[in-house]
Amino acid sequence: MNQTTKNVRELTVAYIGGGSRGWAWGFMKDLALDSEICGTVRLYDIDREAAERNRIIGEKISAHPDTASRWAYKVSNSLQEALTGADFVVISILPGTFDEMESDVHLPERLGIWQPVGDTVGAGGFMRAMRTIPMFVTIGEAIRDYAPEAWVINYTNPMSLCVRTLYEVFPEIRAFGCCHEVFGTQKLLCSMLKTEEGIDGVKRQDLYTTVTGINHFTWLTSATWQGRDLFPLYARFVEKYAESGYDEGGDDNWMNSHFNCAQRVKFDLFRRYGVIAAAGDRHLAEFVAPWYTRNPETVRKWKFSLTPVSWRKQDLKERLQMSEDLVSGKKEITLNGSGEEGHLLLKALLGLGDMVSNVNIPNRGQIPNLPLGAVVETNALFGLNRIDPVYAGPVPASILPLITRHVLNQENTLTAALRCDRKLGLTTFLNDPQLSGVTPADGEKLFNEMLENQRAYLPVKWFE
Amino acid sequence: MNQTTKNVRELTVAYIGGGSRGWAWGFMKDLALDSEICGTVRLYDIDREAAERNRIIGEKISAHPDTASRWAYKVSNSLQEALTGADFVVISILPGTFDEMESDVHLPERLGIWQPVGDTVGAGGFMRAMRTIPMFVTIGEAIRDYAPEAWVINYTNPMSLCVRTLYEVFPEIRAFGCCHEVFGTQKLLCSMLKTEEGIDGVKRQDLYTTVTGINHFTWLTSATWQGRDLFPLYARFVEKYAESGYDEGGDDNWMNSHFNCAQRVKFDLFRRYGVIAAAGDRHLAEFVAPWYTRNPETVRKWKFSLTPVSWRKQDLKERLQMSEDLVSGKKEITLNGSGEEGHLLLKALLGLGDMVSNVNIPNRGQIPNLPLGAVVETNALFGLNRIDPVYAGPVPASILPLITRHVLNQENTLTAALRCDRKLGLTTFLNDPQLSGVTPADGEKLFNEMLENQRAYLPVKWFE
Amino acid sequence: MNQTTKNVRELTVAYIGGGSRGWAWGFMKDLALDSEICGTVRLYDIDREAAERNRIIGEKISAHPDTASRWAYKVSNSLQEALTGADFVVISILPGTFDEMESDVHLPERLGIWQPVGDTVGAGGFMRAMRTIPMFVTIGEAIRDYAPEAWVINYTNPMSLCVRTLYEVFPEIRAFGCCHEVFGTQKLLCSMLKTEEGIDGVKRQDLYTTVTGINHFTWLTSATWQGRDLFPLYARFVEKYAESGYDEGGDDNWMNSHFNCAQRVKFDLFRRYGVIAAAGDRHLAEFVAPWYTRNPETVRKWKFSLTPVSWRKQDLKERLQMSEDLVSGKKEITLNGSGEEGHLLLKALLGLGDMVSNVNIPNRGQIPNLPLGAVVETNALFGLNRIDPVYAGPVPASILPLITRHVLNQENTLTAALRCDRKLGLTTFLNDPQLSGVTPADGEKLFNEMLENQRAYLPVKWFE
Amino acid sequence: MNQTTKNVRELTVAYIGGGSRGWAWGFMKDLALDSEICGTVRLYDIDREAAERNRIIGEKISAHPDTASRWAYKVSNSLQEALTGADFVVISILPGTFDEMESDVHLPERLGIWQPVGDTVGAGGFMRAMRTIPMFVTIGEAIRDYAPEAWVINYTNPMSLCVRTLYEVFPEIRAFGCCHEVFGTQKLLCSMLKTEEGIDGVKRQDLYTTVTGINHFTWLTSATWQGRDLFPLYARFVEKYAESGYDEGGDDNWMNSHFNCAQRVKFDLFRRYGVIAAAGDRHLAEFVAPWYTRNPETVRKWKFSLTPVSWRKQDLKERLQMSEDLVSGKKEITLNGSGEEGHLLLKALLGLGDMVSNVNIPNRGQIPNLPLGAVVETNALFGLNRIDPVYAGPVPASILPLITRHVLNQENTLTAALRCDRKLGLTTFLNDPQLSGVTPADGEKLFNEMLENQRAYLPVKWFE
Repeated sequence: MNQTTKNVRELTVAYIGGGSRGWAWGFMKDLALDSEICGTVRLYDIDREAAERNRIIGEKISAHPDTASRWAYKVSNSLQEALTGADFVVISILPGTFDEMESDVHLPERLGIWQPVGDTVGAGGFMRAMRTIPMFVTIGEAIRDYAPEAWVINYTNPMSLCVRTLYEVFPEIRAFGCCHEVFGTQKLLCSMLKTEEGIDGVKRQDLYTTVTGINHFTWLTSATWQGRDLFPLYARFVEKYAESGYDEGGDDNWMNSHFNCAQRVKFDLFRRYGVIAAAGDRHLAEFVAPWYTRNPETVRKWKFSLTPVSWRKQDLKERLQMSEDLVSGKKEITLNGSGEEGHLLLKALLGLGDMVSNVNIPNRGQIPNLPLGAVVETNALFGLNRIDPVYAGPVPASILPLITRHVLNQENTLTAALRCDRKLGLTTFLNDPQLSGVTPADGEKLFNEMLENQRAYLPVKWFE
Repeated sequence: MNQTTKNVRELTVAYIGGGSRGWAWGFMKDLALDSEICGTVRLYDIDREAAERNRIIGEKISAHPDTASRWAYKVSNSLQEALTGADFVVISILPGTFDEMESDVHLPERLGIWQPVGDTVGAGGFMRAMRTIPMFVTIGEAIRDYAPEAWVINYTNPMSLCVRTLYEVFPEIRAFGCCHEVFGTQKLLCSMLKTEEGIDGVKRQDLYTTVTGINHFTWLTSATWQGRDLFPLYARFVEKYAESGYDEGGDDNWMNSHFNCAQRVKFDLFRRYGVIAAAGDRHLAEFVAPWYTRNPETVRKWKFSLTPVSWRKQDLKERLQMSEDLVSGKKEITLNGSGEEGHLLLKALLGLGDMVSNVNIPNRGQIPNLPLGAVVETNALFGLNRIDPVYAGPVPASILPLITRHVLNQENTLTAALRCDRKLGLTTFLNDPQLSGVTPADGEKLFNEMLENQRAYLPVKWFE
Repeated sequence: MNQTTKNVRELTVAYIGGGSRGWAWGFMKDLALDSEICGTVRLYDIDREAAERNRIIGEKISAHPDTASRWAYKVSNSLQEALTGADFVVISILPGTFDEMESDVHLPERLGIWQPVGDTVGAGGFMRAMRTIPMFVTIGEAIRDYAPEAWVINYTNPMSLCVRTLYEVFPEIRAFGCCHEVFGTQKLLCSMLKTEEGIDGVKRQDLYTTVTGINHFTWLTSATWQGRDLFPLYARFVEKYAESGYDEGGDDNWMNSHFNCAQRVKFDLFRRYGVIAAAGDRHLAEFVAPWYTRNPETVRKWKFSLTPVSWRKQDLKERLQMSEDLVSGKKEITLNGSGEEGHLLLKALLGLGDMVSNVNIPNRGQIPNLPLGAVVETNALFGLNRIDPVYAGPVPASILPLITRHVLNQENTLTAALRCDRKLGLTTFLNDPQLSGVTPADGEKLFNEMLENQRAYLPVKWFE
Repeated sequence: MNQTTKNVRELTVAYIGGGSRGWAWGFMKDLALDSEICGTVRLYDIDREAAERNRIIGEKISAHPDTASRWAYKVSNSLQEALTGADFVVISILPGTFDEMESDVHLPERLGIWQPVGDTVGAGGFMRAMRTIPMFVTIGEAIRDYAPEAWVINYTNPMSLCVRTLYEVFPEIRAFGCCHEVFGTQKLLCSMLKTEEGIDGVKRQDLYTTVTGINHFTWLTSATWQGRDLFPLYARFVEKYAESGYDEGGDDNWMNSHFNCAQRVKFDLFRRYGVIAAAGDRHLAEFVAPWYTRNPETVRKWKFSLTPVSWRKQDLKERLQMSEDLVSGKKEITLNGSGEEGHLLLKALLGLGDMVSNVNIPNRGQIPNLPLGAVVETNALFGLNRIDPVYAGPVPASILPLITRHVLNQENTLTAALRCDRKLGLTTFLNDPQLSGVTPADGEKLFNEMLENQRAYLPVKWFE
């Protein structure tokens, strides 16, 4: 009721992080292409140089002839400077470096734990959380102190825990997490309509899907298009492609271009549980018992891939080169939309058009059989200064144990990180389904080593 | 997940009641004007003749040159016949006659209880519930037995208790209640934009309002238009017109045409509680202590009216004459929309366009500080075979005691009606705010007489 | 799990208040008569002299030949001094003076509001809360800072709000409220066994009663003695004495010696609601519509009394004289037990014997249909460092609206007091059942005057 | 409130099952030794001959010179006959024979799954549930129809699911489950006091323990004796014996005489989670990842044993021989108490002395972070016609994921059994921690075979 109306032509956006480039550039282009909102983007990164480069690129985007709005770019010297007076805060940081991620992803392989991504759950996701949560404590406290009324969009993984940490630190925060993984499955349904029914041109926005679960382990409990329930069709589709996989329907979002899968994991989960899993197979496989990731051969059989961190390192080099080239003018800016919805949600929050989208926020009852307060992913209705979750109903009983397990683990992961509690950390680490075959002794050794490998990013209390 | 796709060109709608004419005609016209859906309406009324007349009128509507779709009309001989195979059920009955309503509304006057409407809460609403609930038990059981998958729209008052009874009898029912009272307040906000800001042409559908509470005691906790929070403007508007009342902004919905008010009750409630009450003043005044209804002079001072049942009787005669004239052809059918949303919600449930609207359904957590299962009114997202309530947040603390009191009373009213429990009935009757000044002895005498006055419509168990 | 074992021979008890004398002396005597525990009582009162007198009396009690244990008495100069290192804190303060209470109790009489006690709910209870809550904020913060691990026993009224305030200020506090009102009704049941069945010698501790509700509006949903359900007997008992009242069974607890009633209110409530109300009629009558308190004649008819504050003033004088005489030695200390249970609960918390007793603590689900966090009164199992509420089940539907109304009002009363919110204060004040017949204008005038009358004890913010 | 007082000298107890002899004899002896209650025990068993033998033994017990009360024994021909008019129902059945149990326990060994008991969770517990649940549906329906007011004590495993099924079939049932496993851990604490502190003669009833969790996976969150917190002592005790195990402290209850363990699992769980696991190690080991049961060597290392079903078969033979000998008079009845509490709880329910004991009943909020309705084990206060659970508080976060996993699995196990749902059954079976290392294909094969092995006891619907 104490809503204030903002001037949509003079907005202030604080962009925290962005060193990973891709997200920042896409977001800046999305802003540039939208004629309804203008303002200033303040770039803050612990790597100040990266922020400077992004500023230059941002200004080039602003100067592009196809640009539809006016955005200024400034580099901030501190969180306080970036946040004070901000209307929106975007968080997209890389916690640590790919060296730490190398430990997250590859060290567990010695115990037969193969992780396709390693940034959400499992051994890798747990360790990433240990170093990320303290960073989000810092960010959350800064928002509480300098921008308590701002809307905060998070893109960083582990998504659920990042958002959860912000609410732990500052319960009144207006934060939410955005992730495009659900979009990929919506596009798969569009592809299905095309290949199975010859219906062309359906866009994911034309569907209605009831989204439920937690980030990267999200599920659709209903999916309809123009008055048609898509579940019966999907059931036939799954039976047809369960063994061979379905290749054409891959996610064409640029972010996932190297990350294709043949949907076999998704199809197998549907056969078992009767609900549509709605994330890339690489993510989904990490949330269940190691059925799909027992070893690299099994992964190949299920037709998805293990992303080596060496690839990420190489990819980063290329993106840094791209950054250089854009800054130096060697390469031209191309102005195209990212396919992300962040700027649309931002506009909805400004009152420029209500919209329904999936979002990661604390459970207020939108999923009545998951714990209140846990960060869940469901649809919400976005409007002026409002994100009202849409009731998703109870998680279907068949998948409830799978999701609840991670929700409870994540809560303990948060506590372990906040308290630097090695005992709770270890039992939580061992309780992940991917580690269920590991002996306690092996698990403890791995835990200690992985923790040691990221010592530089952890509170000293861990090692006292 | 066991959703089925219906043929939208061959729908079956069972219309229960409709003797009150107005609603039925409006609904039939709305169907006729919509080109996307066709089918058959089965008319069932305990007054078979009334159903026959409505059939003839329905057929005339179908034959009207401006009609955009094809609807057939049939009279059913029994609930079973009407319901079997129905896709939708519309319930719009008059429980008893206006003789019983005369007792409801006017008998309590002898104790200084003046009721503007008398059909929802208070002495009259309670008694109406006693005779209506058994009817809804019958209807609910018939739906359970003959049309368990149908979507059921209720228009009958007392709304909350009618819907609540259906869910009590058949918990899996797909029932919801529709009421236009909120629309009136939305229109008031549009009028405000015009008179205070000179902004013309805003339609209620252009606003977004967060609806919460129970039917006829509904509140808006947010109201926005094009990125603008309307609360500050409303606060000024209220101060300006609190004493004089605001006349032009009256509700122009036909149902309320004789029922205008000057919004003074609504404005006074805003000053006291800081939330926008969203129903006609006649209804609102019945839910609180008798501040606005102490006597007819007080009512006049607050600029709304007590609708005498004699007026309703005269009005019914005119509508019956109108019915005669339409049947005989003495009067022509005019084909205009009713302003109601029922047919749009029906279409949304068929998958022909998602929409957000306010609706009366059991609380699943959309209002976390009201009891689960109580029938509440909030926004919901309507889609194919889905009504997903939108999280309304907790009822503001200032009005929570006012609403909760009625929610708990209504639950006891239901129990008293189902069990014919005179003891629980009496304590519940006496607990209504309108009766708070009555002595137990006077109250008991009134209770017994009012019950006696509708003996013909009550289970014999009451009198054993 | 971080429980510590205390040395029961060297306890430290901080006694806050005690100026009202009666409670303090009874408590000191109860300690003296118990051989199992010893230690030091630190007396702190804003009236230092009163504390000094109590010290002298305490030392005389300690010196009494029948004393079974050794307790030292010290006067503390500050809350900090009293609390630091305390194992237990006893709070028994008089908020303001009887001049303020005179305003609480008698000013509303001009609007026809007659209050038998005026310290819990109603106009008087509300106003008492306004000045008491800030005092409990101070005490709660001091406990948080200086004795966070101590067990805190409150005896001050309004009980529910005092305890609720402590938990609001310091959610981890180990506080509970003790009240003997339920004992009186248990004794009434014993009297009933004697007069109706000729069973002599039954003590209230021999019964088992399921206690539910809120302080002073507490109810018994079961009552048994030696395998016998006492409800059928009570039903007959009520019918027998409903009109005449029952005089012999009065509460013989000294605190209530001048406060007798003939149980007619209690009996009438049983007839209406089917549940045993378990507090003195003077308290019970204040919680419902003014059926029993319409005017002094009505009160007499129902055979209880309105306690004038002039009586309290006179009584205080006599107690002060008694204090003088005890201090000077003019009167001898008599060493008898108070009948209260406080010291027994204290012993249970020390691990010296588990016991079940009724207690006021936040609702953790012991009453599933009242809001979580509200302070409710139910049985609890007391043991070493533990107060585990016993599940009382849902409040019976018949009385749920009556209790819930006060629970919600009390929550708003707390908020109004904490924020000095005149608007919320007024609507909450007017929502009390005792004020339901008052016009808003009269109510507001009374509200403002009553607030003004206790200006000296209120935060200045109220008057800015 | 509709409590009735029973004549404690003319009670009727329906004993369903009892073919397993031990329980029945112990219960009959406990009754015989108690002078306060008398009546008739009706024996019903699908093996009528077994019931007849028990009748003869019961009569011999009644005729024993040390018998303190008079109990008659009758054999009933049907559930209806046994139940009609019963005050209490005792259920202690063997679901199927030891042939089916052989499949439950030993078939999974081929996949490396070693089960010490195999009757609660894991592959064996799941399969036992499949055949037991339909039996409890039958019993529950019979109680609903013939003895709806009776108190029902269940001793059959899987305990949680048996009690849960009764409430599913007949929600108003007054059923609870009794299990002595917690007693063993309480006795361990007494042994600890003796060996570590030299305190002799402490009985388990002298302790107070806060019990939480689910049957056979129960935990103590507090344990005190005479004002002393036993956790610090237990922590030292655990460190002392974690490696060697603690042998003297074994459970001396006759039921467990061959089932001793050295508490190493219990101690290891304490080290990891900080809470005292309160069941035999054989049970505890089945609830967690296969840390303690990887293979028979691991089991030996942890110092507990795998009970082969061949042993059970031999033991049954001996008990049948014993039965023969008692019936023929070859052996004399010895009249000693069983150490169980069943008859004491029965007396408490009759109003002959309140008591606090651990019990398995649906969660009404006694454990606020487990799902409502799930059958949990906590303390409860037993009194006349009352079992009021004592609030246990939230399950500690460290063990919450472990317990919740089984609670959710058990709910799905129930659904799978009621619907004969092979798909849900399989995913639930695979979700048990003991099966986490199994591939889906191997798991499915095992599932099908195990189901086939007990075909005679399953609804035909499973095989259609």
